[in-house]
Amino acid sequence: MRMYDLIEKKRLGQKLEPEEIDFIVNGFTNGDIPDYQMSAFLMAVCLNGMDKDETVRMTLAMAHSGDMLDLSPIKGVKVDKHSTGGVGDKTTLVIGAMVAALGIPVAKMSGRGLGHTGGTIDKLESIPGFNTQISTEKFFDDVNRIKFAVAGQTANLAPADKKIYALRDVTATVSSFPLISSSIMSKKLASGADVIVLDVKTGSGAFMKTLKDSVALAAAMVEIGNGAGRKTYGVITDMNQPLGRAVGNTLEVIEAINALKGNSPEDLMEDALVLGQYMVYGSGHASSPEEARSMLEKTIVDGSALRKFAEMVEAQGGDPSYIYDTDKFEKAAFIEPALSPCDGFVRSIKTDDVGIASLILGGGRETKDDIIDHAVGLIIEKKIGDPVKKGEPLAYIHANDKAKLEAAKEKLIGAYTIGDMPEKLPMHVYGVVYDQKTVFEDESLVREAFPDGQHNYFGK
Amino acid sequence: MRMYDLIEKKRLGQKLEPEEIDFIVNGFTNGDIPDYQMSAFLMAVCLNGMDKDETVRMTLAMAHSGDMLDLSPIKGVKVDKHSTGGVGDKTTLVIGAMVAALGIPVAKMSGRGLGHTGGTIDKLESIPGFNTQISTEKFFDDVNRIKFAVAGQTANLAPADKKIYALRDVTATVSSFPLISSSIMSKKLASGADVIVLDVKTGSGAFMKTLKDSVALAAAMVEIGNGAGRKTYGVITDMNQPLGRAVGNTLEVIEAINALKGNSPEDLMEDALVLGQYMVYGSGHASSPEEARSMLEKTIVDGSALRKFAEMVEAQGGDPSYIYDTDKFEKAAFIEPALSPCDGFVRSIKTDDVGIASLILGGGRETKDDIIDHAVGLIIEKKIGDPVKKGEPLAYIHANDKAKLEAAKEKLIGAYTIGDMPEKLPMHVYGVVYDQKTVFEDESLVREAFPDGQHNYFGK
Repeated sequence: MRMYDLIEKKRLGQKLEPEEIDFIVNGFTNGDIPDYQMSAFLMAVCLNGMDKDETVRMTLAMAHSGDMLDLSPIKGVKVDKHSTGGVGDKTTLVIGAMVAALGIPVAKMSGRGLGHTGGTIDKLESIPGFNTQISTEKFFDDVNRIKFAVAGQTANLAPADKKIYALRDVTATVSSFPLISSSIMSKKLASGADVIVLDVKTGSGAFMKTLKDSVALAAAMVEIGNGAGRKTYGVITDMNQPLGRAVGNTLEVIEAINALKGNSPEDLMEDALVLGQYMVYGSGHASSPEEARSMLEKTIVDGSALRKFAEMVEAQGGDPSYIYDTDKFEKAAFIEPALSPCDGFVRSIKTDDVGIASLILGGGRETKDDIIDHAVGLIIEKKIGDPVKKGEPLAYIHANDKAKLEAAKEKLIGAYTIGDMPEKLPMHVYGVVYDQKTVFEDESLVREAFPDGQHNYFGK
Repeated sequence: MRMYDLIEKKRLGQKLEPEEIDFIVNGFTNGDIPDYQMSAFLMAVCLNGMDKDETVRMTLAMAHSGDMLDLSPIKGVKVDKHSTGGVGDKTTLVIGAMVAALGIPVAKMSGRGLGHTGGTIDKLESIPGFNTQISTEKFFDDVNRIKFAVAGQTANLAPADKKIYALRDVTATVSSFPLISSSIMSKKLASGADVIVLDVKTGSGAFMKTLKDSVALAAAMVEIGNGAGRKTYGVITDMNQPLGRAVGNTLEVIEAINALKGNSPEDLMEDALVLGQYMVYGSGHASSPEEARSMLEKTIVDGSALRKFAEMVEAQGGDPSYIYDTDKFEKAAFIEPALSPCDGFVRSIKTDDVGIASLILGGGRETKDDIIDHAVGLIIEKKIGDPVKKGEPLAYIHANDKAKLEAAKEKLIGAYTIGDMPEKLPMHVYGVVYDQKTVFEDESLVREAFPDGQHNYFGK
């Protein structure tokens, strides 16, 4: 088999055989196939697409390029939840505790944040003493004992994906449904969960800016997951504005804790409940998503979710007193409002710019080696549709550096578009894709996304 | 300007600006742009195309990446003739002498052969003493004095093309009209001729296998040449079987000399006359192609073309007595027929396999460093449409090695398809593209090639 012939085949728009895809993924990973051939191939995939069979096979080949985690030491059905990345997305903290409170194991391997979106590991490290670098043994033991653990990724998961992604990143071959979905799913498959619930963000702060693209990506990933024998759900949630009101590590942890105390922004709890209901239903602990939802709601009402969160924190070395008294968290040196420059209504928010404002403050990483300042961030006061007066705060900036504060403030104000007319509020959750069906709050949105009735999840 | 953005632009099918194309060609040539980015870009061009403006600009950028020859020391309009490569293509030897005999300067810079097609330089070196490594001064002086010189390429012509072609060759990005046409034309533009006559071969032994592709390539090259201010003609000639009967260096030189003596295979002389008429007409020495043709025919009848050839050979150190007595040429040790395995008619000939048979004998180069055996080759006895009896010679193999002889014989016999019914004879010359028009012997062929009336020369 020659890479040249396989590039040509894809250039001609032909379908690759399973062993041809294995040859490409393995050959590139082990260095037999040079970058310049792989990038030509990736561009051919961007422009000529791959079908479902090819994409599933590529995902499996990438998943098997490194460690395949064996979660069998954990008793019961293992559920994983993954977000495509958003600003202010602390859902894992909330839903993990709620699902675990129902006795369902949540074994969360998580990454660190990079760019304008944060990572769950970074957020949890805001809690003094919290340790995410725990041994596999302790991880399994914690999950069996208290049903909830969050550990940093140490295994060599899908190295093929790492290498392919690095090349895509410099050759303008990122935008391709088969490549994006196989990249995400290869890591999920290698992580070993039985049930995978994907939170596919859509909107100005998401990787996918349009609902159509988000539905297509969700559907592609669900097909890959199911094709690989994992029960997979793709929930489409809004990212046209930050989720909740807090952006920044400590601030987000506090907001998550408040949510577990029954004091959540509506969008955050709605996201958590919908994602959670498919985690519970998918793992067989409820006979319908609706039943699962009411089970989850009870964990807030009876305080069991909050207790579960504190239990997990304590098990990983964190100080649980912070959970019951969030005033103990260290605050940033400067807290100043970013003021609205005019009267009107918030019409839109460039959500990735809000993430960048937090990055400017030191709350995220521009490069892998940056050190995070956990205390800094933003509290959003005005969201889409809100009326606002000139001089009223759009958000409060929490900073430890005056110059960064001013820069973040400018970025934040620039992210807002304020107009004369009130804007229609964005939905929180658009719908879910699973078992070859789409269940949407408003089916007209799906018809709008796919006017010909064809959900072309694969292709380009 | 960032290469990433330009790759993305082409991936999205957008048109590149002139300075963007310059950035790509210059950046890749000087090493600033890595191979893996360039190959992704080239694949995007293969699949999304480039329009005329982009292709002309790319050709000019490639032409200017190295030496631009200054032919001004040669008096008069300088004409160049270039073939896209064929088997048994000795046309340059014939037409060069004929055009020069009319007093029109033919300053031929030529390359060596590689693969299944031969090079003019290699053929001429069959003549004892003939030296193609002459100084530029002597080259110009010879052309001014006797109107005909053939020199090996020493200048650093279009290094960008060399580097880009080497990358295309390993990334399956060769098949693209903009890339093929810009590659050929960049070298032609750098060679400095005022008039360029392109012999675009079509058929089983050519780079372009179909008439449609050949017409499209010819038209693209003509547009590039005209766009760069050179009067350019694209003549489409047949390569469904070897041109003439001789394949191999000495054998081809002898056939060319015989043609100049008025004893030519019909297809070879027809090719030479049509190409020559556009060289003469294009350089302003005739008021119509028809007048040019009759002027050229006279150079055969009155012997002036043969004398011109001998004069050129002598000027470059060759022994002119070989021209007048071709029996003096050294013959191969073994001359054996390849016999037809059955009765019937020749229906088709895999022409590139005939070229490979000659390569096997040692008559060509598989790699740049191979040494050529000038005496070996084939004399084709049966061409398309000819009746043949079992045991009759299809061709005579001229070899210096028994094992190679047998291998070449097998290859040659395998190249023939013999059937019960006579085959329609292929045309010799299909037509010519110039001045934004196509002039074809049989216009229905053009309509067949472009059913929608659109000659889409650029694009993909």
